[in-house]
Amino acid sequence: MSRKVRVTVWNEFRHEKESEIVRKAYPDGIHTAIGEGLGSVVDVTYATLDDAEHGLSEEVLNNTDVLIWWGHKAHDEVQDEIVNRVHDRVLKGMGLIVLHSGHFSKVFKKLMGTGCDLKWREADEKERIWVVAPSHPIVEGIGEYIELEAEEMYGEHFDIPQPDELIMVSWFEGGEVFRSGCTFTRGQGKIFYFRPGHETYRTYYNEQIRRVISNAVQWAAPTTREYPKYGNHKPLETIKGKA
Amino acid sequence: MSRKVRVTVWNEFRHEKESEIVRKAYPDGIHTAIGEGLGSVVDVTYATLDDAEHGLSEEVLNNTDVLIWWGHKAHDEVQDEIVNRVHDRVLKGMGLIVLHSGHFSKVFKKLMGTGCDLKWREADEKERIWVVAPSHPIVEGIGEYIELEAEEMYGEHFDIPQPDELIMVSWFEGGEVFRSGCTFTRGQGKIFYFRPGHETYRTYYNEQIRRVISNAVQWAAPTTREYPKYGNHKPLETIKGKA
Amino acid sequence: MSRKVRVTVWNEFRHEKESEIVRKAYPDGIHTAIGEGLGSVVDVTYATLDDAEHGLSEEVLNNTDVLIWWGHKAHDEVQDEIVNRVHDRVLKGMGLIVLHSGHFSKVFKKLMGTGCDLKWREADEKERIWVVAPSHPIVEGIGEYIELEAEEMYGEHFDIPQPDELIMVSWFEGGEVFRSGCTFTRGQGKIFYFRPGHETYRTYYNEQIRRVISNAVQWAAPTTREYPKYGNHKPLETIKGKA
Amino acid sequence: MSRKVRVTVWNEFRHEKESEIVRKAYPDGIHTAIGEGLGSVVDVTYATLDDAEHGLSEEVLNNTDVLIWWGHKAHDEVQDEIVNRVHDRVLKGMGLIVLHSGHFSKVFKKLMGTGCDLKWREADEKERIWVVAPSHPIVEGIGEYIELEAEEMYGEHFDIPQPDELIMVSWFEGGEVFRSGCTFTRGQGKIFYFRPGHETYRTYYNEQIRRVISNAVQWAAPTTREYPKYGNHKPLETIKGKA
Repeated sequence: MSRKVRVTVWNEFRHEKESEIVRKAYPDGIHTAIGEGLGSVVDVTYATLDDAEHGLSEEVLNNTDVLIWWGHKAHDEVQDEIVNRVHDRVLKGMGLIVLHSGHFSKVFKKLMGTGCDLKWREADEKERIWVVAPSHPIVEGIGEYIELEAEEMYGEHFDIPQPDELIMVSWFEGGEVFRSGCTFTRGQGKIFYFRPGHETYRTYYNEQIRRVISNAVQWAAPTTREYPKYGNHKPLETIKGKA
Repeated sequence: MSRKVRVTVWNEFRHEKESEIVRKAYPDGIHTAIGEGLGSVVDVTYATLDDAEHGLSEEVLNNTDVLIWWGHKAHDEVQDEIVNRVHDRVLKGMGLIVLHSGHFSKVFKKLMGTGCDLKWREADEKERIWVVAPSHPIVEGIGEYIELEAEEMYGEHFDIPQPDELIMVSWFEGGEVFRSGCTFTRGQGKIFYFRPGHETYRTYYNEQIRRVISNAVQWAAPTTREYPKYGNHKPLETIKGKA
Repeated sequence: MSRKVRVTVWNEFRHEKESEIVRKAYPDGIHTAIGEGLGSVVDVTYATLDDAEHGLSEEVLNNTDVLIWWGHKAHDEVQDEIVNRVHDRVLKGMGLIVLHSGHFSKVFKKLMGTGCDLKWREADEKERIWVVAPSHPIVEGIGEYIELEAEEMYGEHFDIPQPDELIMVSWFEGGEVFRSGCTFTRGQGKIFYFRPGHETYRTYYNEQIRRVISNAVQWAAPTTREYPKYGNHKPLETIKGKA
Repeated sequence: MSRKVRVTVWNEFRHEKESEIVRKAYPDGIHTAIGEGLGSVVDVTYATLDDAEHGLSEEVLNNTDVLIWWGHKAHDEVQDEIVNRVHDRVLKGMGLIVLHSGHFSKVFKKLMGTGCDLKWREADEKERIWVVAPSHPIVEGIGEYIELEAEEMYGEHFDIPQPDELIMVSWFEGGEVFRSGCTFTRGQGKIFYFRPGHETYRTYYNEQIRRVISNAVQWAAPTTREYPKYGNHKPLETIKGKA
């Protein structure tokens, strides 16, 4: 794509309003920290749960190349109509980056077809995210691992389909591992799930985390092709006895 | 599994009642032809759309190791409650074999997360199904290809996620190709999609087609393990500052 | 990568010297037709079998981001030392695009670990290459299929490992199918195998074929990261009883 | 397969002769401990480096369904002729289970096409092997994880191609992770790499480890099919202008 990739960062934006701790970590909301991390090489807009249509009108989505999704405590409040709209846009080619607790969002579960459950623990423990697919563009510029001094733990089994590509695996101080960076394709859309980012930690200010998300945005941007034709199809060759 | 695999063959069973041509091809219903093809090495029961709960009560599903699904013209009549029940059983470990027009069934679309659309044509044309994963147990005993003198055409793009394993690819006389044998895992369940079997052709009496389905039943039978534990998880190791 | 990708096009360049038919199809050699098809967005250099070190000195390879390989009748004449050098450079990150009969080159077989054999036939028959991974950047700008009026046939089973991504599947007039566009990763290097291009047909002048190869060059360009550290590794955490 | 699977356990069998510590762990050799763990449901024979032809004559290999490989300090002493013979048998359908330090064996590297390097450390540390593909037959009967009180550490990046299926991931006390259970196919052969088993620990007496290897033997046993036909192939359909 020669023009800038158009990114919409969606945030539930509730923790920040209700918790002093979260507000201290993300004074302007998690979405803003994510968006600022993308820099000026992309066009960023924001949308949150309490906006009209959750900020995800047809017009907004039709002008979004890549949608980033952060949600946690209010997955159920996302209206099914909007979930279906986002799902449909992904199948039509919009990239989707699902962060952290977004694993339980309606739209991620709908795209995966599985329960998307996992183990979790809030214990201020160390996470070390190891790169296992070193040639993938999503880890361009990233070291052998990203170390986060304190994060929420997510542990296996993570109930997702086998990812197309497994890019990162986390080690947790408390003894678990987790497939932390996974790609999927659904329809014309590319999807990246990235684990870190509990609301009480300033993870989205970490330069390496920001780099991964920026890389993922470029990777997930739509490919320019005509949408496939489905349905009844005339033969391209002569069929015997029909000539 | 040391005991026989318990298979339930589900058929919409409408074409056979409404069309003389289909009834001639499958006098006792498509399900019966499929079930007979499995032989006595498995325990077969049948269920159809017009049975109570579509024949898929909790009890039936809890006693099913592998469910085979054939549906076409009445996908919409399958109640969402039953779809969710089947979906849930697959995630818990039941194998699922989806045949032909079942690609558009509610449960397959829910498991895939995509539209599952494709090109199609009814033109009595030749299909040649080539094996591309020759060491897979699903093609044990199968030759280099299976040739069907007349079948419905299904063509790419087939809107499914990238399969875990691509086992067979079809060539069609009219000029198309199709990924005809695909495996997926969802939760604890194994899924096999197998293309052939339009209702007007006696495809399910073909010995090679029957062998593929029989092999797939053994492949899809559940693995015996405790269901994974999800949710809050105590640390297995001491976390610094928490000791 | 902000600078131009540096591509080396390697051609055996023997058919063109020995056959009037091939010389007519490719007066300046197959490599030139491939290189011209890449346009000016990349830096192209050429290397051929009969050059010193087959044109693939350490210096040339160290300044190559993506190597394109066309070989057929003289695979055995490629010296093992050069094969090992190319293999090593791929593992270190150089992209590799293997075309057509290059399936039987020493370096492709060494990277795959398999025999890489297939069925073939020269019968001036039609090939139709269907896209099965429509969101992949390698098929950006490509239609539903590419049709070639006359090509050599390659048929399954193609003895390669399961590709990371299957992007295109060919239909042949004579009744076969073939996995024609396949990606692999080996070490830090990305590999794309692309089927078409028998020496007697002007396939590498076809605009759609050129577009696929151009896309593949961008896709295969190296990711910028430090090479992974291997070998003995000091613990990052305190090990009990060792503190 | 209705008859018993015929397993050959190959061991370098040098550490046991040279080190008191290893001899104490494996008085009759690592191979014997592995073979006994398979029980009587399979037919087990043994072969070691210092046997004639390393115990891997044509006859032995032709009568082996699944070969298990443990080697470490003498990879270079395995003759290329025998390596090629084993490689060829795998491509023809023999299953191969590569254990622990076998990652650096000539035959595994030849099958993978990569360097197969990794990080390592001998520090008597804890390993916890997590199951990430819970429905796979290789983990039938296995809990959520296998815990080994002391093992050698292997850490990422593990320089292998993307596995067909990733089944287990290890957590190490010192801070690393590792893809510990990986499947691959090459030609007609199925390959399973399984990490644990340093020579100084009694890992191959562990019941869960033995169960994994036993399951892998059943999974890797050859599929009964005719070997694919390669080479020149007559058309199956009439080609225009050739009729």
